[in-house]
Amino acid sequence: MQQLTIIPPRSGTSFILKKNQRLKVVDVEGEQVSDFICYNLHDKAEYLSSGRTIDYAETIYLTKGNLFYSNRSNVMFEMIEDTVGQHDFLLTPCSAEMFRIIYGDTNPHRGCFGNLCQALKEYEIAPDNIPTCFNIFMNVPVDGVTGKVSVLPPKSKAGDHVTLQAKMDLIVGMTACSAGMSNNFSYKPIGYVIEE
Amino acid sequence: MQQLTIIPPRSGTSFILKKNQRLKVVDVEGEQVSDFICYNLHDKAEYLSSGRTIDYAETIYLTKGNLFYSNRSNVMFEMIEDTVGQHDFLLTPCSAEMFRIIYGDTNPHRGCFGNLCQALKEYEIAPDNIPTCFNIFMNVPVDGVTGKVSVLPPKSKAGDHVTLQAKMDLIVGMTACSAGMSNNFSYKPIGYVIEE
Repeated sequence: MQQLTIIPPRSGTSFILKKNQRLKVVDVEGEQVSDFICYNLHDKAEYLSSGRTIDYAETIYLTKGNLFYSNRSNVMFEMIEDTVGQHDFLLTPCSAEMFRIIYGDTNPHRGCFGNLCQALKEYEIAPDNIPTCFNIFMNVPVDGVTGKVSVLPPKSKAGDHVTLQAKMDLIVGMTACSAGMSNNFSYKPIGYVIEE
Repeated sequence: MQQLTIIPPRSGTSFILKKNQRLKVVDVEGEQVSDFICYNLHDKAEYLSSGRTIDYAETIYLTKGNLFYSNRSNVMFEMIEDTVGQHDFLLTPCSAEMFRIIYGDTNPHRGCFGNLCQALKEYEIAPDNIPTCFNIFMNVPVDGVTGKVSVLPPKSKAGDHVTLQAKMDLIVGMTACSAGMSNNFSYKPIGYVIEE
Protein backbone atom coordinates (compact mmCIF):
# COMPACT_ATOMS: atom_id res chain seq x y z
CA MET A 1 0.00 0.00 0.00
CA GLN A 2 1.27 3.43 -0.94
CA GLN A 3 2.10 6.12 1.59
CA LEU A 4 -0.50 8.73 2.58
CA THR A 5 0.98 12.17 1.94
CA ILE A 6 -0.31 14.95 4.20
CA ILE A 7 -1.04 18.49 3.01
CA PRO A 8 -0.68 20.59 6.19
CA PRO A 9 -3.54 22.95 7.20
CA ARG A 10 -3.92 26.09 5.06
CA SER A 11 -1.32 25.02 2.51
CA GLY A 12 -1.09 23.59 -1.00
CA THR A 13 0.97 21.28 -3.16
CA SER A 14 1.45 20.21 -6.77
CA PHE A 15 2.54 16.99 -8.47
CA ILE A 16 2.26 14.96 -11.65
CA LEU A 17 -0.44 12.31 -12.06
CA LYS A 18 0.18 10.06 -15.05
CA LYS A 19 -2.55 8.66 -17.28
CA ASN A 20 -4.38 5.73 -15.60
CA GLN A 21 -2.90 6.48 -12.16
CA ARG A 22 -5.48 6.97 -9.44
CA LEU A 23 -5.45 9.79 -6.93
CA LYS A 24 -7.17 9.02 -3.64
CA VAL A 25 -7.98 12.21 -1.69
CA VAL A 26 -8.64 11.53 1.97
CA ASP A 27 -10.34 13.77 4.52
CA VAL A 28 -8.09 12.58 7.33
CA GLU A 29 -9.90 14.20 10.27
CA GLY A 30 -13.28 15.02 8.69
CA GLU A 31 -15.06 18.26 7.68
CA GLN A 32 -12.19 19.54 5.56
CA VAL A 33 -12.12 20.73 1.94
CA SER A 34 -9.47 20.34 -0.78
CA ASP A 35 -9.46 22.69 -3.78
CA PHE A 36 -8.33 20.68 -6.82
CA ILE A 37 -7.18 21.89 -10.25
CA CYS A 38 -5.35 20.17 -13.11
CA TYR A 39 -3.67 20.85 -16.44
CA ASN A 40 -2.54 18.74 -19.38
CA LEU A 41 1.11 17.97 -18.57
CA HIS A 42 2.07 18.30 -22.23
CA ASP A 43 0.16 21.54 -22.95
CA LYS A 44 -0.63 23.68 -19.91
CA ALA A 45 -3.11 25.84 -21.85
CA GLU A 46 -5.51 22.88 -21.50
CA TYR A 47 -7.13 23.00 -18.04
CA LEU A 48 -10.03 21.58 -16.06
CA SER A 49 -13.27 23.34 -17.06
CA SER A 50 -16.23 23.53 -14.67
CA GLY A 51 -18.42 24.90 -17.47
CA ARG A 52 -17.80 22.03 -19.88
CA THR A 53 -17.97 19.38 -17.15
CA ILE A 54 -21.30 20.61 -15.78
CA ASP A 55 -22.67 20.95 -19.34
CA TYR A 56 -21.81 17.36 -20.33
CA ALA A 57 -22.67 15.77 -16.96
CA GLU A 58 -25.94 17.79 -16.76
CA THR A 59 -25.47 18.26 -13.02
CA ILE A 60 -23.67 20.63 -10.65
CA TYR A 61 -23.10 17.81 -8.14
CA LEU A 62 -20.33 15.64 -9.60
CA THR A 63 -19.77 12.20 -8.10
CA LYS A 64 -18.71 8.59 -8.85
CA GLY A 65 -19.02 7.80 -12.56
CA ASN A 66 -18.76 11.40 -13.76
CA LEU A 67 -16.16 12.42 -16.33
CA PHE A 68 -14.32 15.72 -15.88
CA TYR A 69 -13.56 17.69 -19.06
CA SER A 70 -10.98 20.23 -20.11
CA ASN A 71 -11.63 23.57 -21.81
CA ARG A 72 -10.98 21.63 -25.06
CA SER A 73 -13.69 19.07 -24.23
CA ASN A 74 -11.21 16.24 -23.60
CA VAL A 75 -11.72 13.93 -20.60
CA MET A 76 -9.07 14.72 -17.97
CA PHE A 77 -10.17 12.26 -15.28
CA GLU A 78 -13.05 10.15 -13.99
CA MET A 79 -14.27 10.00 -10.42
CA ILE A 80 -14.30 6.26 -9.68
CA GLU A 81 -14.96 6.32 -5.94
CA ASP A 82 -16.82 8.74 -3.66
CA THR A 83 -17.79 8.02 -0.05
CA VAL A 84 -19.31 11.50 0.47
CA GLY A 85 -21.32 12.52 -2.60
CA GLN A 86 -21.26 16.28 -2.06
CA HIS A 87 -18.60 18.50 -3.65
CA ASP A 88 -18.55 21.97 -5.19
CA PHE A 89 -17.67 22.98 -8.75
CA LEU A 90 -19.13 26.50 -8.79
CA LEU A 91 -16.75 28.61 -6.72
CA THR A 92 -13.21 29.87 -7.18
CA PRO A 93 -10.66 29.13 -4.44
CA CYS A 94 -10.69 31.33 -1.34
CA SER A 95 -8.23 34.20 -1.75
CA ALA A 96 -7.00 37.36 -0.04
CA GLU A 97 -9.55 39.30 -2.12
CA MET A 98 -12.35 36.93 -1.10
CA PHE A 99 -11.46 37.26 2.59
CA ARG A 100 -11.57 41.06 2.15
CA ILE A 101 -14.84 41.16 0.16
CA ILE A 102 -16.88 38.52 2.03
CA TYR A 103 -15.31 38.37 5.51
CA GLY A 104 -14.09 41.99 5.75
CA ASP A 105 -10.58 40.87 6.81
CA THR A 106 -8.12 43.76 6.78
CA ASN A 107 -5.04 41.52 6.89
CA PRO A 108 -6.26 38.47 4.99
CA HIS A 109 -4.67 35.05 4.52
CA ARG A 110 -3.61 34.33 0.91
CA GLY A 111 -6.08 31.46 0.89
CA CYS A 112 -6.22 28.42 -1.36
CA PHE A 113 -5.72 30.69 -4.35
CA GLY A 114 -2.43 32.02 -2.97
CA ASN A 115 -1.39 28.50 -2.00
CA LEU A 116 -2.15 27.19 -5.50
CA CYS A 117 -0.26 30.11 -7.09
CA GLN A 118 2.78 29.16 -4.99
CA ALA A 119 2.45 25.41 -5.61
CA LEU A 120 1.96 25.75 -9.38
CA LYS A 121 4.91 28.09 -9.88
CA GLU A 122 7.06 24.98 -10.17
CA TYR A 123 5.24 24.15 -13.40
CA GLU A 124 5.24 27.77 -14.63
CA ILE A 125 1.47 28.12 -14.31
CA ALA A 126 0.57 31.76 -13.65
CA PRO A 127 -2.10 32.97 -11.18
CA ASP A 128 -4.31 34.19 -14.07
CA ASN A 129 -4.42 30.61 -15.33
CA ILE A 130 -6.01 29.18 -12.18
CA PRO A 131 -9.73 28.95 -12.97
CA THR A 132 -12.71 27.70 -10.95
CA CYS A 133 -11.50 24.62 -9.04
CA PHE A 134 -13.20 21.36 -8.20
CA ASN A 135 -13.63 21.76 -4.46
CA ILE A 136 -13.55 18.26 -3.01
CA PHE A 137 -15.78 17.73 0.07
CA MET A 138 -16.99 21.35 -0.13
CA ASN A 139 -20.71 21.51 0.67
CA VAL A 140 -22.36 24.24 -1.38
CA PRO A 141 -26.08 23.61 -1.73
CA VAL A 142 -27.94 25.73 -4.27
CA ASP A 143 -31.56 26.82 -3.82
CA GLY A 144 -33.06 25.91 -7.17
CA VAL A 145 -35.79 28.56 -6.90
CA THR A 146 -33.86 31.63 -5.74
CA GLY A 147 -30.42 30.52 -6.95
CA LYS A 148 -28.94 31.26 -3.52
CA VAL A 149 -25.62 29.55 -2.85
CA SER A 150 -24.76 28.54 0.75
CA VAL A 151 -21.44 27.34 2.14
CA LEU A 152 -22.06 24.70 4.83
CA PRO A 153 -19.72 22.40 6.78
CA PRO A 154 -18.60 19.41 4.70
CA LYS A 155 -20.52 16.14 5.08
CA SER A 156 -17.23 14.21 5.13
CA LYS A 157 -16.16 12.29 8.24
CA ALA A 158 -12.65 11.15 9.16
CA GLY A 159 -11.45 8.67 6.53
CA ASP A 160 -13.95 9.65 3.84
CA HIS A 161 -12.38 9.89 0.39
CA VAL A 162 -12.78 10.21 -3.36
CA THR A 163 -10.67 8.52 -6.03
CA LEU A 164 -9.94 10.17 -9.38
CA GLN A 165 -8.46 8.21 -12.28
CA ALA A 166 -6.40 10.25 -14.76
CA LYS A 167 -7.33 9.92 -18.44
CA MET A 168 -4.33 11.96 -19.58
CA ASP A 169 -0.99 12.97 -18.02
CA LEU A 170 -1.82 15.74 -15.55
CA ILE A 171 -0.24 18.48 -13.48
CA VAL A 172 -2.31 18.62 -10.29
CA GLY A 173 -2.62 21.45 -7.77
CA MET A 174 -4.35 20.71 -4.44
CA THR A 175 -4.88 22.41 -1.09
CA ALA A 176 -6.03 21.86 2.46
CA CYS A 177 -8.58 24.65 2.54
CA SER A 178 -7.93 27.97 4.28
CA ALA A 179 -11.50 29.33 4.48
CA GLY A 180 -13.20 28.87 7.84
CA MET A 181 -16.70 28.90 6.40
CA SER A 182 -16.05 25.94 4.11
CA ASN A 183 -14.49 23.65 6.75
CA ASN A 184 -16.48 24.64 9.85
CA PHE A 185 -13.53 26.73 11.13
CA SER A 186 -11.41 23.63 11.73
CA TYR A 187 -8.48 24.21 9.29
CA LYS A 188 -7.42 20.58 9.15
CA PRO A 189 -4.97 18.74 6.89
CA ILE A 190 -5.86 16.72 3.77
CA GLY A 191 -4.24 13.42 2.77
CA TYR A 192 -3.65 11.86 -0.63
CA VAL A 193 -2.26 8.70 -2.15
CA ILE A 194 -1.18 8.11 -5.75
CA GLU A 195 -2.08 4.54 -6.72
CA GLU A 196 -0.57 2.82 -9.75
CA MET B 1 -31.20 57.40 -29.36
CA GLN B 2 -28.36 55.19 -30.54
CA GLN B 3 -28.70 52.65 -33.32
CA LEU B 4 -29.60 49.03 -32.56
CA THR B 5 -26.90 46.78 -34.03
CA ILE B 6 -28.05 43.31 -35.06
CA ILE B 7 -26.01 40.13 -34.54
CA PRO B 8 -27.31 37.77 -37.24
CA PRO B 9 -28.49 34.26 -36.24
CA ARG B 10 -25.74 31.79 -35.28
CA SER B 11 -22.96 34.39 -35.41
CA GLY B 12 -20.83 36.50 -33.09
CA THR B 13 -19.17 39.88 -32.79
CA SER B 14 -16.67 41.79 -30.67
CA PHE B 15 -16.24 45.44 -29.73
CA ILE B 16 -14.86 47.79 -27.10
CA LEU B 17 -17.04 49.04 -24.23
CA LYS B 18 -15.44 51.93 -22.35
CA LYS B 19 -15.74 52.45 -18.60
CA ASN B 20 -19.17 53.89 -17.65
CA GLN B 21 -20.69 53.13 -21.06
CA ARG B 22 -23.81 50.99 -20.94
CA LEU B 23 -24.48 47.99 -23.13
CA LYS B 24 -28.14 47.22 -23.74
CA VAL B 25 -28.64 43.67 -25.03
CA VAL B 26 -32.03 43.19 -26.68
CA ASP B 27 -33.83 39.95 -27.47
CA VAL B 28 -35.31 41.36 -30.66
CA GLU B 29 -37.74 38.54 -31.49
CA GLY B 30 -37.89 36.70 -28.13
CA GLU B 31 -36.61 33.31 -26.87
CA GLN B 32 -33.05 33.87 -27.98
CA VAL B 33 -29.78 33.63 -26.03
CA SER B 34 -26.59 35.70 -26.24
CA ASP B 35 -23.33 34.30 -24.88
CA PHE B 36 -21.34 37.17 -23.40
CA ILE B 37 -17.66 37.35 -22.38
CA CYS B 38 -15.34 40.26 -21.60
CA TYR B 39 -11.70 41.10 -20.92
CA ASN B 40 -9.83 44.06 -19.48
CA LEU B 41 -8.94 46.13 -22.57
CA HIS B 42 -5.56 47.04 -21.06
CA ASP B 43 -4.60 43.53 -19.88
CA LYS B 44 -6.34 40.67 -21.63
CA ALA B 45 -5.21 38.14 -19.02
CA GLU B 46 -7.96 39.62 -16.81
CA TYR B 47 -11.31 38.07 -17.77
CA LEU B 48 -14.86 37.65 -16.54
CA SER B 49 -14.98 34.93 -13.85
CA SER B 50 -18.17 32.97 -13.17
CA GLY B 51 -16.60 31.43 -10.07
CA ARG B 52 -15.70 34.73 -8.42
CA THR B 53 -18.97 36.41 -9.42
CA ILE B 54 -21.15 33.58 -8.03
CA ASP B 55 -19.02 33.47 -4.86
CA TYR B 56 -19.38 37.21 -4.12
CA ALA B 57 -23.03 37.50 -5.23
CA GLU B 58 -23.94 34.29 -3.34
CA THR B 59 -26.32 33.27 -6.12
CA ILE B 60 -26.17 31.46 -9.45
CA TYR B 61 -28.98 33.64 -10.85
CA LEU B 62 -27.42 37.05 -11.54
CA THR B 63 -29.75 39.99 -12.17
CA LYS B 64 -30.20 43.77 -11.72
CA GLY B 65 -27.92 45.13 -9.00
CA ASN B 66 -25.33 42.33 -9.23
CA LEU B 67 -21.66 43.11 -9.79
CA PHE B 68 -19.66 40.90 -12.18
CA TYR B 69 -16.05 40.18 -11.17
CA SER B 70 -12.87 39.29 -13.01
CA ASN B 71 -10.48 36.45 -12.16
CA ARG B 72 -8.56 39.13 -10.21
CA SER B 73 -11.64 40.04 -8.14
CA ASN B 74 -12.09 43.44 -9.77
CA VAL B 75 -15.57 44.59 -10.78
CA MET B 76 -15.89 44.48 -14.59
CA PHE B 77 -19.52 45.61 -14.91
CA GLU B 78 -22.83 45.93 -13.11
CA MET B 79 -26.19 44.78 -14.38
CA ILE B 80 -28.37 47.87 -14.01
CA GLU B 81 -31.50 46.73 -15.87
CA ASP B 82 -33.09 43.33 -16.42
CA THR B 83 -36.60 42.78 -17.78
CA VAL B 84 -36.26 38.96 -17.71
CA GLY B 85 -34.51 37.85 -14.51
CA GLN B 86 -33.28 34.46 -15.70
CA HIS B 87 -29.81 34.00 -17.18
CA ASP B 88 -27.13 31.31 -17.01
CA PHE B 89 -23.59 31.58 -15.66
CA LEU B 90 -22.76 27.86 -15.30
CA LEU B 91 -22.22 26.59 -18.83
CA THR B 92 -19.57 27.10 -21.47
CA PRO B 93 -20.66 28.26 -24.94
CA CYS B 94 -22.06 25.65 -27.32
CA SER B 95 -19.28 24.28 -29.53
CA ALA B 96 -18.59 21.68 -32.21
CA GLU B 97 -17.47 19.32 -29.40
CA MET B 98 -20.67 19.98 -27.43
CA PHE B 99 -22.84 19.28 -30.48
CA ARG B 100 -20.93 16.00 -30.93
CA ILE B 101 -21.02 14.94 -27.26
CA ILE B 102 -24.59 15.96 -26.33
CA TYR B 103 -26.49 16.03 -29.65
CA GLY B 104 -24.48 13.33 -31.49
CA ASP B 105 -24.01 15.59 -34.54
CA THR B 106 -21.52 14.10 -37.00
CA ASN B 107 -21.02 17.38 -38.90
CA PRO B 108 -21.51 19.94 -36.14
CA HIS B 109 -21.84 23.72 -36.32
CA ARG B 110 -18.91 25.58 -34.72
CA GLY B 111 -21.36 27.03 -32.21
CA CYS B 112 -21.05 30.13 -30.05
CA PHE B 113 -17.58 29.00 -29.04
CA GLY B 114 -16.39 28.96 -32.66
CA ASN B 115 -18.12 32.28 -33.30
CA LEU B 116 -16.44 33.85 -30.26
CA CYS B 117 -13.04 32.45 -31.32
CA GLN B 118 -13.49 34.12 -34.69
CA ALA B 119 -14.81 37.41 -33.27
CA LEU B 120 -12.09 37.72 -30.61
CA LYS B 121 -9.21 37.04 -33.04
CA GLU B 122 -9.27 40.76 -33.81
CA TYR B 123 -8.11 41.37 -30.22
CA GLU B 124 -5.62 38.48 -30.23
CA ILE B 125 -7.60 36.49 -27.68
CA ALA B 126 -6.98 32.76 -28.20
CA PRO B 127 -9.66 30.02 -27.99
CA ASP B 128 -8.07 28.61 -24.79
CA ASN B 129 -8.72 31.98 -23.15
CA ILE B 130 -12.50 31.87 -23.62
CA PRO B 131 -13.88 30.65 -20.26
CA THR B 132 -17.43 30.03 -19.04
CA CYS B 133 -19.56 32.85 -20.47
CA PHE B 134 -22.45 34.79 -19.02
CA ASN B 135 -25.30 33.45 -21.12
CA ILE B 136 -27.85 36.25 -21.31
CA PHE B 137 -31.51 35.10 -21.46
CA MET B 138 -30.40 31.43 -21.21
CA ASN B 139 -32.81 29.53 -18.96
CA VAL B 140 -30.92 26.87 -17.02
CA PRO B 141 -32.80 25.89 -13.87
CA VAL B 142 -30.92 23.78 -11.34
CA ASP B 143 -32.61 21.17 -9.15
CA GLY B 144 -31.24 22.05 -5.71
CA VAL B 145 -31.67 18.50 -4.42
CA THR B 146 -30.26 16.38 -7.25
CA GLY B 147 -28.09 19.10 -8.83
CA LYS B 148 -29.62 18.34 -12.25
CA VAL B 149 -29.19 21.12 -14.80
CA SER B 150 -31.88 21.60 -17.47
CA VAL B 151 -31.77 23.78 -20.58
CA LEU B 152 -35.24 25.26 -21.22
CA PRO B 153 -36.51 27.87 -23.70
CA PRO B 154 -35.67 31.41 -22.59
CA LYS B 155 -38.31 33.36 -20.67
CA SER B 156 -37.56 36.47 -22.77
CA LYS B 157 -40.17 37.94 -25.10
CA ALA B 158 -39.59 40.26 -28.06
CA GLY B 159 -38.06 43.51 -26.79
CA ASP B 160 -36.89 42.15 -23.46
CA HIS B 161 -33.42 43.36 -22.52
CA VAL B 162 -30.66 43.71 -19.96
CA THR B 163 -28.32 46.67 -19.51
CA LEU B 164 -24.73 46.26 -18.32
CA GLN B 165 -22.65 49.24 -17.20
CA ALA B 166 -18.88 48.87 -17.64
CA LYS B 167 -16.73 49.55 -14.56
CA MET B 168 -13.49 49.28 -16.55
CA ASP B 169 -12.56 49.50 -20.25
CA LEU B 170 -13.63 46.18 -21.77
CA ILE B 171 -13.21 44.04 -24.84
CA VAL B 172 -16.59 42.33 -25.31
CA GLY B 173 -17.43 39.16 -27.26
CA MET B 174 -21.11 38.37 -27.88
CA THR B 175 -23.18 35.93 -29.93
CA ALA B 176 -26.65 35.15 -31.17
CA CYS B 177 -26.78 31.57 -29.91
CA SER B 178 -26.34 28.57 -32.19
CA ALA B 179 -27.69 25.80 -29.93
CA GLY B 180 -31.26 24.75 -30.64
CA MET B 181 -31.94 23.53 -27.12
CA SER B 182 -31.13 26.89 -25.55
CA ASN B 183 -33.32 29.01 -27.87
CA ASN B 184 -36.22 26.62 -28.52
CA PHE B 185 -34.83 25.78 -31.98
CA SER B 186 -35.54 29.28 -33.28
CA TYR B 187 -32.00 30.55 -34.11
CA LYS B 188 -32.92 34.23 -34.02
CA PRO B 189 -30.78 37.38 -34.05
CA ILE B 190 -29.76 39.46 -31.02
CA GLY B 191 -29.61 43.26 -30.88
CA TYR B 192 -27.44 45.61 -28.88
CA VAL B 193 -26.94 49.32 -28.29
CA ILE B 194 -23.96 51.04 -26.72
CA GLU B 195 -25.20 53.99 -24.66
CA GLU B 196 -22.91 56.82 -23.50
